[in-house]
Amino acid sequence: MGNINSVVIATGTHGNEFTGIYLGKKFEQFPKLIQRPSFDTRVLLSNPKAFAAARRYIDKDLNRCFASEDIKNPQLASYEDILAKNIYYLLAEESKHQQQVIIDLHSSTANMQLTIILGSKHPFILQLAAHLNAINPDVRICYSQPTRDSNFLCSISELGFAIEVGPVAQGVLNAELFQKTEALIYQVLDYIESYNHGMNQPQTSTLTYYQYAGVIDYPRNEYGEIQGMIYPQLQFRDYEPLNPGEPIFLTFDGTAIAYQGTSTVYPIFINEAAYYEKGIAMCLTQKKTLEI
Amino acid sequence: MGNINSVVIATGTHGNEFTGIYLGKKFEQFPKLIQRPSFDTRVLLSNPKAFAAARRYIDKDLNRCFASEDIKNPQLASYEDILAKNIYYLLAEESKHQQQVIIDLHSSTANMQLTIILGSKHPFILQLAAHLNAINPDVRICYSQPTRDSNFLCSISELGFAIEVGPVAQGVLNAELFQKTEALIYQVLDYIESYNHGMNQPQTSTLTYYQYAGVIDYPRNEYGEIQGMIYPQLQFRDYEPLNPGEPIFLTFDGTAIAYQGTSTVYPIFINEAAYYEKGIAMCLTQKKTLEI
Repeated sequence: MGNINSVVIATGTHGNEFTGIYLGKKFEQFPKLIQRPSFDTRVLLSNPKAFAAARRYIDKDLNRCFASEDIKNPQLASYEDILAKNIYYLLAEESKHQQQVIIDLHSSTANMQLTIILGSKHPFILQLAAHLNAINPDVRICYSQPTRDSNFLCSISELGFAIEVGPVAQGVLNAELFQKTEALIYQVLDYIESYNHGMNQPQTSTLTYYQYAGVIDYPRNEYGEIQGMIYPQLQFRDYEPLNPGEPIFLTFDGTAIAYQGTSTVYPIFINEAAYYEKGIAMCLTQKKTLEI
Repeated sequence: MGNINSVVIATGTHGNEFTGIYLGKKFEQFPKLIQRPSFDTRVLLSNPKAFAAARRYIDKDLNRCFASEDIKNPQLASYEDILAKNIYYLLAEESKHQQQVIIDLHSSTANMQLTIILGSKHPFILQLAAHLNAINPDVRICYSQPTRDSNFLCSISELGFAIEVGPVAQGVLNAELFQKTEALIYQVLDYIESYNHGMNQPQTSTLTYYQYAGVIDYPRNEYGEIQGMIYPQLQFRDYEPLNPGEPIFLTFDGTAIAYQGTSTVYPIFINEAAYYEKGIAMCLTQKKTLEI
């Protein structure tokens, strides 16, 4: 693979995830912060209308609109469908002529710390992930096994990934998390700069990552209404081991519901606000290691 | 004052404040929990459409629609204006014939613990507040000096007050806070039951409360865009003393901005998500005591 020519920092793919959005505004105000000699970096505010409304989206979740079948489908014409097509053609066109890294910045109400969500196991991305994991104690690496055709914005580039930071409420800036996210972006850019100068000697190392293994929904009644909450002792315990038989929900009438699986898992996105409507109380992952 | 005849527990006045909404659903499923022999209790889901959309409101903030001038103004016809008129006429009509307590349940992304926001200094409400403050260590009493004509839902009754619980993200249930709010409701209902039986001997006691003394907005540029965040060490420090010269904001370029006041204040609603659009980064209060 040749040098990286450009980096796109996508922000506001969800309009109420302020950390990335205001970080992007800072970078636009002080562009030298993200400039590196060997490649171009720019900020893309993905969904300005949703940001103006301080909502996740206007018509539908933009970060589920990028499956290539959907991009090609002229019948899909909601605000976010159209936006996705615009972003896709812009970035896919650029990617034809250059190596482009896409970093899509998100935040979560779950205790995701600084999670890097890989959409592919491209060697460059794995090396970058291993590097960040080694130098930054808050970094977690998550591999979201792509369906045949990912619908995430960052999937436009083979060198795309998402960053989820949390816990932070929607529509809120948390200064500590803002600063940690900012520092992480610089670590990514510095790594790419070193790579372009041939200074990152690929070396065998072990990468610990969390592989997506399914989701669990809230307990619901026959009308689909939620009947319970995340168990108090599980709240904010993302990335900690969950064993079969341990409680995961507390129903409104005070009954604990246990995890029914047969092996230890590592839940993430626990109590993510945006996932209530998706029927997801938490995502389960398996802790894995990979020699790279 | 005679006996209390009825209690209305209003929930979902803001559709993304789930604690009260799901507590109300629990009470509707298990009505005995809120029944007491000497008065009627019922739940009112104030803004069902906003809850269905998991948004604070559809057109405008319902909890700013109850000023009597606005209720009488036929020109005001947004979704929430109409809703406010319906709720007002329903409850005001009932209040003519009975002593009605209105409890309006809210949640906040700020560390409000269990805050009781008084709209009046009616002796019964002050006695109730003092009682709750004495028996529940999480309770804080806040007095929002009403403008001549309050626009809050709970102002429909002279015996109305709001409860703000936090910190919890919008659109999220936190089990621990849910249980604390539930216990507080029972403490209120039990107090009213005792009052109706003449068992609460009014006794002189000292009530510590926090009196609203103004608001501070985020630092903004000439376009109104936010230029800084709550200072990291101030986040979640609601109800703690803030002294002149102590930092309250951190600008995006890393500059601390100090509190410019001349006396110690007690900020609350620090970094409340819903107040970004209102130009409020925090509300300032003064700590006071009152002999009742």
